[in-house]
Amino acid sequence: MMARRESLIERYRITRGRKFRLKDIDPGDTHEITSKAQAEALLQEGVDRLSDLQEKLYAQDRWGILCIFQAMDAAGKDGTIKHVMSGVNPQGCQVSAFKVPSAEELDHDFLWRTTRHLPERGRIGIFNRSYYEETLVVRVHPEFLERQRLPPPLVTRRIWKERYEDINCFERYLTRNGFVILKFFLHVSKDEQLRRFVSRLDEPEKHWKFSLGDVHERAHWDDYMAAYEQTIRATATPHAPWFVIPADHKWFTRLVVSAAIVDALESLDLHFPRVDQEKRRELEAARASLVGDAGDVADTVVGLAPARQTGGDDDDDDGDAPEDGKRKGKKNKKKSKRSKDTD
Amino acid sequence: MMARRESLIERYRITRGRKFRLKDIDPGDTHEITSKAQAEALLQEGVDRLSDLQEKLYAQDRWGILCIFQAMDAAGKDGTIKHVMSGVNPQGCQVSAFKVPSAEELDHDFLWRTTRHLPERGRIGIFNRSYYEETLVVRVHPEFLERQRLPPPLVTRRIWKERYEDINCFERYLTRNGFVILKFFLHVSKDEQLRRFVSRLDEPEKHWKFSLGDVHERAHWDDYMAAYEQTIRATATPHAPWFVIPADHKWFTRLVVSAAIVDALESLDLHFPRVDQEKRRELEAARASLVGDAGDVADTVVGLAPARQTGGDDDDDDGDAPEDGKRKGKKNKKKSKRSKDTD
Repeated sequence: MMARRESLIERYRITRGRKFRLKDIDPGDTHEITSKAQAEALLQEGVDRLSDLQEKLYAQDRWGILCIFQAMDAAGKDGTIKHVMSGVNPQGCQVSAFKVPSAEELDHDFLWRTTRHLPERGRIGIFNRSYYEETLVVRVHPEFLERQRLPPPLVTRRIWKERYEDINCFERYLTRNGFVILKFFLHVSKDEQLRRFVSRLDEPEKHWKFSLGDVHERAHWDDYMAAYEQTIRATATPHAPWFVIPADHKWFTRLVVSAAIVDALESLDLHFPRVDQEKRRELEAARASLVGDAGDVADTVVGLAPARQTGGDDDDDDGDAPEDGKRKGKKNKKKSKRSKDTD
Repeated sequence: MMARRESLIERYRITRGRKFRLKDIDPGDTHEITSKAQAEALLQEGVDRLSDLQEKLYAQDRWGILCIFQAMDAAGKDGTIKHVMSGVNPQGCQVSAFKVPSAEELDHDFLWRTTRHLPERGRIGIFNRSYYEETLVVRVHPEFLERQRLPPPLVTRRIWKERYEDINCFERYLTRNGFVILKFFLHVSKDEQLRRFVSRLDEPEKHWKFSLGDVHERAHWDDYMAAYEQTIRATATPHAPWFVIPADHKWFTRLVVSAAIVDALESLDLHFPRVDQEKRRELEAARASLVGDAGDVADTVVGLAPARQTGGDDDDDDGDAPEDGKRKGKKNKKKSKRSKDTD
């Protein structure tokens, strides 16, 4: 699996963009994966592995992950996020979708709206679209630039180069601060997009996803492809690589995205926080105090059982002590601490 | 005034930090200003000018201003902000004070907490302390760095150099996006700080400002001065200059800060938005429709007067039309538009 994963990722990972050409990656490619069933089995392995790794990421609370998804409409961003992240505890994962910016957002620097949604340490943040729209849709539709109300002297021919540079610096800064960045471009073909649009019209439960605006954007297909190619060329770096992933087969897209995220997490040497001697003593004292308490709890639980309340932060502990027992336990802990002090 | 302002600012503005030495600036300096009264008169001129400029800044809604204040305790940050900005419409000015970071803030990259408070276009944002604490107090007290929960492999000897670099890139990015940055270090002497601490003890209305923690920080005075000098050396740039302002005389500090902000605003060639021909036609149509309305309003105002309600967004217009009149005005405007279409 490891070797296959590595070969899957390497093929689509861009860490130095200078020579990147979009046409070198075929949207219909599925590399060595020959069937949907095979891909789905491998994806399930990835989902399970991701779930394990994310628990450690959360417990360790040092690193954070930022996954950025960019694509043409109907390339499968939403479905990929859903299927790849479905095994992850939502408490450790936050998805932010960026649509048309608000008036307040337009009145700020262009990174402001997304920065507010950056993940905390210990979490996987997912950006469904991102600040890259600033060098994609805004480049294809210059009228969107005017909406940002930049002072006219600052809008020069250098503006895209400046944005690439600013994004690169920003991403370098984030990685220096413990946030691993993975950028995914789901590369769908124009024909496959057409098929998916038509299926949105044909299937009633997909009607809500259909937008005439998306269809009109097809007229700008070549401009978008040029903007993507330039953006990836300028912003693929070793610390914040782009993954350009064939997207004509959804099952293949999902598998590669999953592999890339698992690979990044595995490179971090995640582990549950190690317990030092002092903490170990504290845990033992807590156990002693709780064991002493267990008698009281057993006595009272019978009488209290019908009125028993469940605490707000239950986890997977086998025994849920009733609230009263918990409070007593705390009191006893204090007592035992004090008696230790006076020993 | 212009010449004096320029000479006041030039003396303390650092745009290239490489050779900067803190000891070259005397905290007791007052340059050519010989009396408090003279300084206060000049400050009043500055306050008035700032108020005018800020109105244009707001109306034009293109540029934004970010003023950062850093200083040792009791150097006069709060008083300076109060006196310099007192003439400015609060709607166009937002002050953010950064104290001990929250757990949520510590769980993010170090720029996150301040970025959320960056000003909108058209506004003057004031940071009372800022992300510079990251290379000041955090450098003097390395235990604060541990609280940020950075992954250990990322905490290397290069960390301060990286932070300077990241801050420089971030500030370059902000200026490219229309936000003018002015950074003020209020340079107070250790003796003057002592006098001010004592006066906080002596005057009951200043007791709330006294903190024993601030007094303890005096033990780290030299470390702080070294951290300030290094920070200014590394982050004074032509696009985001530092102003190192003598702060043993509060009236002098305020005057120089005011002069620097006025100077920056004047360099922007601010003006009220120009009205083009189309907009002018729209205004004339609105006037015609309102004049037609005036008769109706006069008829109804008499009867409605006691129940008259004030709208939420009154401004300095001379006549406040009652709500009913306003609504009618809008309807008529629509009508006149339609009739124009059919003409």
